[in-house]
Amino acid sequence: MNFASDNAGPMHPKVLEALIAANDGTQMPYGNDTIMQDARAHLRDVFEAPEAGVYMVSTGTAANALALATYAKPWDAIFCHRTAHIEEDECGAPEFFTNGAKLTLVDGADGKMSPEALRDSILATGDKGVHGVQRGPISLTQATELGTVYTLNELKALTDIAKEFGLATHLDGARFANAQVALGCSAADMTWKAGIDVVSFGGTKNGCMMTEAVVIFDPEKAWEFELRRKRGAHLLSKHRYLSTQLQAYLADDLWLTLAEQSNTACAKLARGLRQIEGAKLLHEPDVNMIFAELPRGAHKRAMQAGAKYYLSPFDTPLDGPEDDLIACRLVCDWSKKDEDIDQLLALLR
Amino acid sequence: MNFASDNAGPMHPKVLEALIAANDGTQMPYGNDTIMQDARAHLRDVFEAPEAGVYMVSTGTAANALALATYAKPWDAIFCHRTAHIEEDECGAPEFFTNGAKLTLVDGADGKMSPEALRDSILATGDKGVHGVQRGPISLTQATELGTVYTLNELKALTDIAKEFGLATHLDGARFANAQVALGCSAADMTWKAGIDVVSFGGTKNGCMMTEAVVIFDPEKAWEFELRRKRGAHLLSKHRYLSTQLQAYLADDLWLTLAEQSNTACAKLARGLRQIEGAKLLHEPDVNMIFAELPRGAHKRAMQAGAKYYLSPFDTPLDGPEDDLIACRLVCDWSKKDEDIDQLLALLR
Amino acid sequence: MNFASDNAGPMHPKVLEALIAANDGTQMPYGNDTIMQDARAHLRDVFEAPEAGVYMVSTGTAANALALATYAKPWDAIFCHRTAHIEEDECGAPEFFTNGAKLTLVDGADGKMSPEALRDSILATGDKGVHGVQRGPISLTQATELGTVYTLNELKALTDIAKEFGLATHLDGARFANAQVALGCSAADMTWKAGIDVVSFGGTKNGCMMTEAVVIFDPEKAWEFELRRKRGAHLLSKHRYLSTQLQAYLADDLWLTLAEQSNTACAKLARGLRQIEGAKLLHEPDVNMIFAELPRGAHKRAMQAGAKYYLSPFDTPLDGPEDDLIACRLVCDWSKKDEDIDQLLALLR
Amino acid sequence: MNFASDNAGPMHPKVLEALIAANDGTQMPYGNDTIMQDARAHLRDVFEAPEAGVYMVSTGTAANALALATYAKPWDAIFCHRTAHIEEDECGAPEFFTNGAKLTLVDGADGKMSPEALRDSILATGDKGVHGVQRGPISLTQATELGTVYTLNELKALTDIAKEFGLATHLDGARFANAQVALGCSAADMTWKAGIDVVSFGGTKNGCMMTEAVVIFDPEKAWEFELRRKRGAHLLSKHRYLSTQLQAYLADDLWLTLAEQSNTACAKLARGLRQIEGAKLLHEPDVNMIFAELPRGAHKRAMQAGAKYYLSPFDTPLDGPEDDLIACRLVCDWSKKDEDIDQLLALLR
Repeated sequence: MNFASDNAGPMHPKVLEALIAANDGTQMPYGNDTIMQDARAHLRDVFEAPEAGVYMVSTGTAANALALATYAKPWDAIFCHRTAHIEEDECGAPEFFTNGAKLTLVDGADGKMSPEALRDSILATGDKGVHGVQRGPISLTQATELGTVYTLNELKALTDIAKEFGLATHLDGARFANAQVALGCSAADMTWKAGIDVVSFGGTKNGCMMTEAVVIFDPEKAWEFELRRKRGAHLLSKHRYLSTQLQAYLADDLWLTLAEQSNTACAKLARGLRQIEGAKLLHEPDVNMIFAELPRGAHKRAMQAGAKYYLSPFDTPLDGPEDDLIACRLVCDWSKKDEDIDQLLALLR
Repeated sequence: MNFASDNAGPMHPKVLEALIAANDGTQMPYGNDTIMQDARAHLRDVFEAPEAGVYMVSTGTAANALALATYAKPWDAIFCHRTAHIEEDECGAPEFFTNGAKLTLVDGADGKMSPEALRDSILATGDKGVHGVQRGPISLTQATELGTVYTLNELKALTDIAKEFGLATHLDGARFANAQVALGCSAADMTWKAGIDVVSFGGTKNGCMMTEAVVIFDPEKAWEFELRRKRGAHLLSKHRYLSTQLQAYLADDLWLTLAEQSNTACAKLARGLRQIEGAKLLHEPDVNMIFAELPRGAHKRAMQAGAKYYLSPFDTPLDGPEDDLIACRLVCDWSKKDEDIDQLLALLR
Repeated sequence: MNFASDNAGPMHPKVLEALIAANDGTQMPYGNDTIMQDARAHLRDVFEAPEAGVYMVSTGTAANALALATYAKPWDAIFCHRTAHIEEDECGAPEFFTNGAKLTLVDGADGKMSPEALRDSILATGDKGVHGVQRGPISLTQATELGTVYTLNELKALTDIAKEFGLATHLDGARFANAQVALGCSAADMTWKAGIDVVSFGGTKNGCMMTEAVVIFDPEKAWEFELRRKRGAHLLSKHRYLSTQLQAYLADDLWLTLAEQSNTACAKLARGLRQIEGAKLLHEPDVNMIFAELPRGAHKRAMQAGAKYYLSPFDTPLDGPEDDLIACRLVCDWSKKDEDIDQLLALLR
Repeated sequence: MNFASDNAGPMHPKVLEALIAANDGTQMPYGNDTIMQDARAHLRDVFEAPEAGVYMVSTGTAANALALATYAKPWDAIFCHRTAHIEEDECGAPEFFTNGAKLTLVDGADGKMSPEALRDSILATGDKGVHGVQRGPISLTQATELGTVYTLNELKALTDIAKEFGLATHLDGARFANAQVALGCSAADMTWKAGIDVVSFGGTKNGCMMTEAVVIFDPEKAWEFELRRKRGAHLLSKHRYLSTQLQAYLADDLWLTLAEQSNTACAKLARGLRQIEGAKLLHEPDVNMIFAELPRGAHKRAMQAGAKYYLSPFDTPLDGPEDDLIACRLVCDWSKKDEDIDQLLALLR
């Protein structure tokens, strides 16, 4: 009953099988393995981007920070939502990798930047000549940190503003597959066709062990990215073990199947929560993550029975008035089954 | 017939089995898995260091760069051998992670710093007040990049100089096990008992998938290291897959067994090479890596038959006078068998 | 009629005389001149801080960035007001010198942090373990960028919160003298007695050529600051020309006299503005700087007659409806005379 | 009798007069003063480079570090002579401003890189793909730190190698005028006509207070330089006081006159030293700086009579056998007169 994080889930068996298969014999190190050629080609096909740079790293933070460092100058602002992972959960990795770019926080409901807020933030930046930081890339998170998804039109509205100012756009796709499934679109639709320049394509949360690919649509940026990856100590020596995960993740659309599973499980959980008296969903859950308020008593029952998930704030005590509404985050990884959902709901009710 | 790198070798089956086992069910992310507790305790036992900080990352470069950043100020010199991995093969990662510390190159035969050269380098640094960089940590590589091993006395002679000047010492142990087996000593003997403050304890090259632990003997440095690891994007979310490798690597002294195997294979290869007319070993191979000169014709025969290894310089052409002596590096990973060695030797003869 | 900036004003004749006197003969470079000893001693007396580190640099941005880098770790938040110079006007210098600390913006009326907002910002930071940036120093600006001054009680309320969380406090005193004169207190009252740890003590805006001293009350931080200054290329070789300015600035309380002059001139200007129909002061001006709204027609008359000052936004056109209220900033440097004020007011009326 | 450094000398009276004149009235800050326009135009004329970017900073270290940061990527090597100021005397400022580029030391007699050594260093760098640092700019010092001067042919031989590899060349001209006078060539001859891309044009050591201009021949690099200067806290607010120094320094070729004076004084000193028994010049002095060995007794007499200069090593005791030869550096600033030289020689004899 672990609903704490999609990072708490296991690898899908097919990813594990791929690891086992990849372990056979020797392979040249540092990305020169034969598997990577195939995985790269496959991901280019998925993105309908035959020239794109495709590189792997072992954490989503590395994918984000390296992608941003490739697109932002040290004296740039990076525009992101106030709740972005790069702002809240990476201990300043973007600042470290960019040598001090300034994360500039943009508001908007449900974890999504509003076009007005983005435009205002851009206009308020870079109007002081050499005295202020300069306008740099926009970073969007899809699905957002609040479990919502930008529609394609919403994405386009934001990247249009970026383009109007000549700025690049990064997409933090730690839950890329979940968002794509929710929208029912293609990977190209959700990225370069919507004006995105560089993508952190995450697989770790969705059934892999550690699979984060960076997809750079402008091949001229690729070599700089490679140097930054190596210098950031993110080029794995036995790289085949990353390559094989990506290969397995893409094969037979496993990535979409797993995202579908976790989104569906989450929708079931949401339906159940809505029926609990006093419960309130804080955002409409588009993917596999719910933010809700529930009575303290419900949390207490669930947690004492072994359920794991985070309250907000983290350290909210379980002892106290049972009817107090306390916020929580519930995440369904790909492996959640109907009975897991039922079990949790039974406790929360 | 891949003798290019120990990074070209596979995982040992026991490591793979551990991965399979660890995939069962859910685990809390970011190092809070139950496996890590056990692996940390085991490594502390190995090092006879019950208070040591033990942290995992996925590359040796990350282990080195983060360890050095924890011990070096940005304005410090880091003293290392001219052939050190941190100088030659990390694309400036130590400079990046330390925010610009200066690698100061120390000479010495066979890839080992001489005490005289170290003392001279230290004395030539830090004698200019605020104008010059300051004296910072010493970084030793054990086994060295040239396949040799410092004796315990040699290590001690260097760390004594470090201590005389109040400087810390880092040990790059990408081939730690191979060196320990070669010396027949304990991990404690080769580290804190010899004056070492922080160790990059590598397992990747020796039968793991990606297993690099940093062992910090001063627990007061541990929290800073943790912050640097996260900020460097090197804290893995599904951390259990690192933990389980370390656990399996240490269990039943697998690490020592595998190092013994690769050292033994290499010794057999060295004996064979010595019998080839015109061949010359450039250093006495103490571990699993040989630098040798061989006639171009020998290289040509071997490579055309599919042998993989690096010539020096990398791009030396195979076409040319057959008797020219051309340097090469031959590395035996743990999986090399007698017949692999025999096959290569047969081609080189 | 230049009211654009106190940086537009000249040196006071006594500072110039000091430069002339200091030019006599030779002096040891890099701060080892005999004048610096005297200037340092005098500034320590002024601050009643006989052990304080006192160092000079040539820009206020350098003073701020180096002071903050000495007190903030790269992974720290630096809490500052949304309008702080370090946030808005230094092109990311604090981020550069700290290697990527995160400026965290605190609200509050009239350019002053409110204690509630500071506490909320601190609480919202550093509650995520290794995942978020950590709590770092607070940076206050006195006088503020909006021309207001924290009372001693207001300062104390903020530094009390800092101390409650174990955080240091920096004071950006680009207009230190103006604030001190406005409060009628001592330099010690406004700094270490009010809980401040490190001060950027500015003289450039107040009659010097380039005179920015950093005063560090904890002498243990001094050596690190010296290294950072040199490494930041801010240790001047012919340092006597900085030393002599500081010496002259402090002699006979010239600094307080000049601040008194510019505050008085500004108060006169404020009184005059209040009598202009349609004019509105946006904040109560405590020192030598006014933010006001005036009809476009008034601006047009003044500027066409040669007055220089900034409109907000910078690029507001002078052509347009004459009655539109347009914001502006008016700064009185020490050299402004009654007739300068009268002349400007006559045009604005 | 201060022969310690050209930084120990005063401003020339004409520079001081210019400061006095510039103090009249108000001027727009941050380089927007009217004087800078004129000074920039004049320096462009001097360099016969009508499009060049010309910017001022207050230290030579800032000029060097900012120029190098504009031309080197963080993952680049910067090739410099082993004795370069950027390597030995800037506390790692180039590493700080470039975010960790690697200074790669090139040998050569008399403080000058040899073409062979430069070529070897370049070839030994950048041949490891992504694993090693990449080839970056060359930094030459003219006059060198050992008081010698590259001939135009020698410069050309080095920049030809740089161009062969597509690398830029920086000239550290802290003693630019002294070198130019020694060569009897034009500023253009010694820079862009000899293949130089960016120059640190120093005036501080040669009669100014603090006058360091960066001349960038490629105007496309200028904006990046401006941002780096501001972010490095090196854009002075009351910039007119820099501008006016440069204006005065260039007017009527004052810069060349002063360099001629100091070179001549130094030549006289060299002639005198050669006549001292036991004295030995370590390099042929081309400009205003001598490295020599003299008997300890001579040093003792001179220093006890008040002469100031540096022994090598710095802390060599004056007590000891009088006949021991001890190295020293003697620098003549522009203000040294015949009687100063005679006085020193009389003591040393």
